[in-house]
Amino acid sequence: MKVWFIGIKGAVATTILVGVLAIKRGLSAPNGILSEEKRFSRLNLARLEDLQFGGHDIRGVTLYDAAYRNVSDNSTFDTMQLAELKGEIDSIPVKCGIVNNCGDAISSLCDNNTLTLSKAVNQVSQELCQFAGDDSCVVVNLASTEPYFAPQPEYATLDSFEAAVKANSKKIPASAIYAYCAIKNGLPYVNFTPSMGNDIPAIKELANTLGVPHCGKDGKTGETLVKTALVPMFKHRHLTIDGWYGSNILGNLDGQILRHPDNKQSKLITKTSVLPRMLGYEPHLGSRIDYFPPLSDHKVAWDFISFKGFLGHRMNMQFTWQGCDSILAAPLVIDLIRFMELAQRNGARGLVDPLAVYFKDPLDIDVLDLCSQYTLFNEWIEQF
Amino acid sequence: MKVWFIGIKGAVATTILVGVLAIKRGLSAPNGILSEEKRFSRLNLARLEDLQFGGHDIRGVTLYDAAYRNVSDNSTFDTMQLAELKGEIDSIPVKCGIVNNCGDAISSLCDNNTLTLSKAVNQVSQELCQFAGDDSCVVVNLASTEPYFAPQPEYATLDSFEAAVKANSKKIPASAIYAYCAIKNGLPYVNFTPSMGNDIPAIKELANTLGVPHCGKDGKTGETLVKTALVPMFKHRHLTIDGWYGSNILGNLDGQILRHPDNKQSKLITKTSVLPRMLGYEPHLGSRIDYFPPLSDHKVAWDFISFKGFLGHRMNMQFTWQGCDSILAAPLVIDLIRFMELAQRNGARGLVDPLAVYFKDPLDIDVLDLCSQYTLFNEWIEQF
Amino acid sequence: MKVWFIGIKGAVATTILVGVLAIKRGLSAPNGILSEEKRFSRLNLARLEDLQFGGHDIRGVTLYDAAYRNVSDNSTFDTMQLAELKGEIDSIPVKCGIVNNCGDAISSLCDNNTLTLSKAVNQVSQELCQFAGDDSCVVVNLASTEPYFAPQPEYATLDSFEAAVKANSKKIPASAIYAYCAIKNGLPYVNFTPSMGNDIPAIKELANTLGVPHCGKDGKTGETLVKTALVPMFKHRHLTIDGWYGSNILGNLDGQILRHPDNKQSKLITKTSVLPRMLGYEPHLGSRIDYFPPLSDHKVAWDFISFKGFLGHRMNMQFTWQGCDSILAAPLVIDLIRFMELAQRNGARGLVDPLAVYFKDPLDIDVLDLCSQYTLFNEWIEQF
Amino acid sequence: MKVWFIGIKGAVATTILVGVLAIKRGLSAPNGILSEEKRFSRLNLARLEDLQFGGHDIRGVTLYDAAYRNVSDNSTFDTMQLAELKGEIDSIPVKCGIVNNCGDAISSLCDNNTLTLSKAVNQVSQELCQFAGDDSCVVVNLASTEPYFAPQPEYATLDSFEAAVKANSKKIPASAIYAYCAIKNGLPYVNFTPSMGNDIPAIKELANTLGVPHCGKDGKTGETLVKTALVPMFKHRHLTIDGWYGSNILGNLDGQILRHPDNKQSKLITKTSVLPRMLGYEPHLGSRIDYFPPLSDHKVAWDFISFKGFLGHRMNMQFTWQGCDSILAAPLVIDLIRFMELAQRNGARGLVDPLAVYFKDPLDIDVLDLCSQYTLFNEWIEQF
Repeated sequence: MKVWFIGIKGAVATTILVGVLAIKRGLSAPNGILSEEKRFSRLNLARLEDLQFGGHDIRGVTLYDAAYRNVSDNSTFDTMQLAELKGEIDSIPVKCGIVNNCGDAISSLCDNNTLTLSKAVNQVSQELCQFAGDDSCVVVNLASTEPYFAPQPEYATLDSFEAAVKANSKKIPASAIYAYCAIKNGLPYVNFTPSMGNDIPAIKELANTLGVPHCGKDGKTGETLVKTALVPMFKHRHLTIDGWYGSNILGNLDGQILRHPDNKQSKLITKTSVLPRMLGYEPHLGSRIDYFPPLSDHKVAWDFISFKGFLGHRMNMQFTWQGCDSILAAPLVIDLIRFMELAQRNGARGLVDPLAVYFKDPLDIDVLDLCSQYTLFNEWIEQF
Repeated sequence: MKVWFIGIKGAVATTILVGVLAIKRGLSAPNGILSEEKRFSRLNLARLEDLQFGGHDIRGVTLYDAAYRNVSDNSTFDTMQLAELKGEIDSIPVKCGIVNNCGDAISSLCDNNTLTLSKAVNQVSQELCQFAGDDSCVVVNLASTEPYFAPQPEYATLDSFEAAVKANSKKIPASAIYAYCAIKNGLPYVNFTPSMGNDIPAIKELANTLGVPHCGKDGKTGETLVKTALVPMFKHRHLTIDGWYGSNILGNLDGQILRHPDNKQSKLITKTSVLPRMLGYEPHLGSRIDYFPPLSDHKVAWDFISFKGFLGHRMNMQFTWQGCDSILAAPLVIDLIRFMELAQRNGARGLVDPLAVYFKDPLDIDVLDLCSQYTLFNEWIEQF
Repeated sequence: MKVWFIGIKGAVATTILVGVLAIKRGLSAPNGILSEEKRFSRLNLARLEDLQFGGHDIRGVTLYDAAYRNVSDNSTFDTMQLAELKGEIDSIPVKCGIVNNCGDAISSLCDNNTLTLSKAVNQVSQELCQFAGDDSCVVVNLASTEPYFAPQPEYATLDSFEAAVKANSKKIPASAIYAYCAIKNGLPYVNFTPSMGNDIPAIKELANTLGVPHCGKDGKTGETLVKTALVPMFKHRHLTIDGWYGSNILGNLDGQILRHPDNKQSKLITKTSVLPRMLGYEPHLGSRIDYFPPLSDHKVAWDFISFKGFLGHRMNMQFTWQGCDSILAAPLVIDLIRFMELAQRNGARGLVDPLAVYFKDPLDIDVLDLCSQYTLFNEWIEQF
Repeated sequence: MKVWFIGIKGAVATTILVGVLAIKRGLSAPNGILSEEKRFSRLNLARLEDLQFGGHDIRGVTLYDAAYRNVSDNSTFDTMQLAELKGEIDSIPVKCGIVNNCGDAISSLCDNNTLTLSKAVNQVSQELCQFAGDDSCVVVNLASTEPYFAPQPEYATLDSFEAAVKANSKKIPASAIYAYCAIKNGLPYVNFTPSMGNDIPAIKELANTLGVPHCGKDGKTGETLVKTALVPMFKHRHLTIDGWYGSNILGNLDGQILRHPDNKQSKLITKTSVLPRMLGYEPHLGSRIDYFPPLSDHKVAWDFISFKGFLGHRMNMQFTWQGCDSILAAPLVIDLIRFMELAQRNGARGLVDPLAVYFKDPLDIDVLDLCSQYTLFNEWIEQF
């Protein structure tokens, strides 16, 4: 099967490419991938060695150089072994991405940003169709976080969205165009970012109408993953959370983009909405995301939780998570690719909400704690 | 209903006494108590104001003074308000406990340790029956952790146990005598400690034969609670735990007793067995428990988790839990009292394993992760 | 001797009042006070029992109620014992403070904010002189952090400052007025806050001309204290600091005021300038201060330090500081009061820079590491 | 000049070899080395490129393989670049070490352990002299920690020591033999381990008599380094330390050896004596060292400090140090080699105590805080 990455030169996508090629050659084991569990073998999920990749990116660096820099900066793969994979990486098709209404932080990374939305739709559609051919192909958004857009009339229906595209509206960011093009052309779409993408009524309407599976949004890889594992503990024990403060530092391109307040807002919204929705009350929340170059693609999150128990006595817990974002994200994306193909093969139409377990801000579903999400996922799998 | 605490002068028991009396007088709200949730109201659980307390203890201090010292050392309750409760606390019946085969750490706290096991059985039985009268009465072990005893032929059957009691065996610790006396006399028994108590075939046989509900062991209040909430996250995400190191420091009597290697072993066994059983493989484990007087009844646990993900990349997480043991334990004990009375009222016989969610080392059940335990508990509740 | 606090109803001032009165009555020992060391006895420093207090504040709450709320929210003093001190606290003279150009965050706390700068100068001067009488009297700024003011021509000379006061300039904040009034009237002045106060050429000129000792600024109580103890370690070991990220959360009025970006900027400037000045190079710095009400006057700082050693290998250190700001600040202020009186008694004129050890941003001196500051202080003391 | 390492195949020694060779070839910069500061250039310290290495080791692995495993396990050096250094590493002379009275943990690593002490003295002396020839040569103990030996009559004088050697006493461990041989033959000796080595009167007498410089013991690289930087802060601020608990986990050979209680005791003694000596009082201390293989040569130390301030209010601080032991130790050893040669060249006789700043447990000197030690060192340097 085929896989198209929006943001193919980024840390997550290049980690996937390197990892899948390395596993194919026996240079690494398929560690950390849920979908490799034996229980899924009956489902005929796509095999790692059968995945064919392509993608968009807005940066000029070659794909191999982007991959090299990613794995060497983060000591995630031996650079000598990477050299063995160069030929295969060089042969992966990469197209120039679009940056419409992505904000200065993102569009400054790109020379080519003069397309109207209509032209962008045509170009992206053509590129996706050409790549996919007659094969099944999943499109995954792994691009940098776009600025936040509040709900707009343009997003309300497919008609209003298409009219806004024609009018070259300033309210339609690239991520929505990509989602539109993928789904319009029958390709399942995964939004692994906090950007808008498929999170608007117009796109959901399109997916429902055409019967194309999609899911999102914002991959749950680190701090939020821990949150959704810990919060039920406080709830079951009736320990009232007075305040939860989270400090996140990260040093990759994602961190650099998130220095821009507009882009950061998108991320903060998906991060901070989780807690009150899980708890049913509103503790004092604080959440900081800051760029910290010494960490490269590693991310350090420090969370401080103040809680009250019996007799109103106050206690606290803190944790420090030191993870590598792309290493954590890559296997989730591999899972999502496989399960979206499975969904399409089995006639799923529109939003595939049993995949909520993969997302910080799962669309249109209020199951947020990790265990319940995992149960939901398992029940979904069992039906096939 | 009635409640008998073994170790009534300890931090957990006095916190419960003070808390329940304070709530009764409106000096505190019933915070942090699961069984206060509205959904349980249909079950006619015992009301807080209807609980009547009594207990054994081996120390000479008065119950009020023990309560005073506990709440003032830990700032868990206003000492002026405590004074208002003195009359009620003074009227609680307290009997001198037994210390047979409890090890020097414990028996050094007590002047009165010359009873044979047979006499201890008679005395304890008489005291329990006198207190309980015709009311329902739950017996809860909250005493200091005894030394560890490996499985012995004496524990294998009720007959061998009773023979060992007659022979005044050195293998039968006080906790088993208390469990025996409670169950023999039809009183539901809760083992909130890592001591033997009901965790031997002989006692289980007795409970099954007589149809008396019991449960245990070792209340899950802190580090292990967090572990059983976090481990499923690592499992679901296929992050392999290479090593988990836990350092626990605590400053109360519990900590003092645990300085003795024999007593500490009981605790370490319940603490370290959890992880490999949950994971299905054996990471490198380290677990330390040390006495640290400046903390009084507060406990600080630092856990360091080393894990591997995609491409074998190594990452880590650490957390620091700063909790007050008695504050965390008290509401769990209140829940257990109520649910054990419910169990008995509904004809439960022997081990009540749906209460696994309350214990570090739930007896005879392999459901260890917090969410599954909570699901099990909810399903059990729903049947009433 | 006499002591005048600007911000007498705040947490630091009320902690000092309660502490000094408690020590006087034998309700507490004089813990944590450097100036109580025996080696200072030859200097005839003011005795704790001889300190007479008064102060300005802008809030309407009574001094006793402010003290009560402070110590009960933070469990820093037994409220029953506080009641014994009520008479003495009630007799402390308190005047209504000024809020000129303090920004909305501060002036919203106050009803009375209509004085011109000239009238403010007259009123404050009169109040200070009336309180001091013929005694030695030190004035200490403990008020909330004002917004940051960049250098202005108005501050350059005493003449330009006095002209700006006459013109009721918007550039002269209340802290500078207080500093001006104290020094103009011969009273030693301590700036324990990050506000402007004595940190402008005009005020320094006045102090030099009149020969009045002053010092500042911003008491070094927590995170910065640790920084200035740790940085020399990295320097001596030639471990290159790549990045230092600090996250501070606090729940008191200070925290509330610092929610306002203008006020926060003053604080961030004193906090972040320390590191590059100590290191001689500019690592990647991040510093966050956020309001977190569950902590009351306690402050939690988490610092993450990324450093490189031999072969460029990257390592890290993190610390979490859980301190009570007023408890940490109070004894430093007591020391400063005593040493400023000592300085004045011994003819010190203008800035007393050997007191740098007490400040985050010591004025006009580049000795920042704690040990060197302490050496400087000891050498200064030895000369008397 | 020449350098002889006892334990040349260990992590610290191989890191030095790789580092010095890499710097020589321009593959790395001389980062993290104090003695590279310009101010020392007037002293004609040995140049990195002029250092010639040799050493003893008890393990059979080749030196190159030991170096390879060390740097690849810890990602401290690129393995492809290491290959370029193979020829030079292979040419370094390595002799088989001695294991007399080193305990089972150590002697189990070695096949060759049948020498009497007298024969060991002869053999080691001959090997050292042959290597050193007429050049200046410093001997550095980097071997695994031996079991602790309490003071014995055998150590009291040179005569009693030499008699004990003749009698093949069980009280004389290998480290003391090495120290004896080095000093006896006029070679300056550095004890970078907690083993006995030069820390007995007999060896000091020998060094004084022959006028050979020596220093020790136990390199200060991590947790203790931080302690000696932080403790003065608490002292200057009159914050009373109630308790200090330190948990250390490490995964290298050092960690494996320290699993043996006898060997661990040597380490714990140097670690825990520091605090009471610095503070002048005895807080509650806890110190744990545990083997944790996932960390390889990285070491994680978590320290929890409970302290009391004004009004007896209790606060705490905790830190987590994540360092790589060999990376931290290597540049200190390079400094010590150079400064010991400097000392000998300038006629230093016996213990060189101004080098206290490099050691956890500096011999015969009570200057423990880092700043004072650094001042002492600087004063010593200035005299040359």
